[in-house]
Amino acid sequence: MGADLLDATFAALSDPTRRAILARLAVGEATVTELAAPFEVTQPAISKHLKVLERAGLISRGRDAQRRPCRLRAEPLRAATDWLERYRAYWEESYQRLDALLDELKADELKADESNADGSKADG
Amino acid sequence: MGADLLDATFAALSDPTRRAILARLAVGEATVTELAAPFEVTQPAISKHLKVLERAGLISRGRDAQRRPCRLRAEPLRAATDWLERYRAYWEESYQRLDALLDELKADELKADESNADGSKADG
Repeated sequence: MGADLLDATFAALSDPTRRAILARLAVGEATVTELAAPFEVTQPAISKHLKVLERAGLISRGRDAQRRPCRLRAEPLRAATDWLERYRAYWEESYQRLDALLDELKADELKADESNADGSKADG
Repeated sequence: MGADLLDATFAALSDPTRRAILARLAVGEATVTELAAPFEVTQPAISKHLKVLERAGLISRGRDAQRRPCRLRAEPLRAATDWLERYRAYWEESYQRLDALLDELKADELKADESNADGSKADG
């Protein structure tokens, strides 16, 4: 898959309504009217979003001229996931660094508690 | 992470230069001049891309006023990967369907070959 398709996929995913449409279509195909129902946007606005998704290859439209049901085409998400997967090590590492930091802080806290406990023992 | 940050992350990733900048920063921090070097774009254009990446939380800039080196902040990619992961079953299923179809086609081809072979045997 070329950079252009990756551009189109990520651009298509950058809108919450379009992501919600894909989530709805993951359950099964739906018409524009059905897709528009849960959103506070007009049907033409939904149609516009569908065009963006269709250009990115993320949905296909049925041939039935009246209904033209939309169907999820998840295939382009594969390339997007592959691209992101290469960075998994980086955010996992950030988490590990954060975990290590939290462990250190906890250890410090424990030491502080222990020396406090020692202090109270010496007092008592 | 809210929808807004997911919007910003996917929007930031929708440009090939910005993806290339992130790939470069995965190797280590770099200045604007160093980042601009491999691209046929001006330094101000790179600075614009860096602002988009910085707003999306994908890079941070050093405090050194002269160099202001950029560093990868992979953390937001985690939420983007998580969002995409939910669709893995769908594109894997598409692949399985494609595999099944290819198997069927191969089986048909094999049968056709066999009947051709039988035919030639009968002939011979």
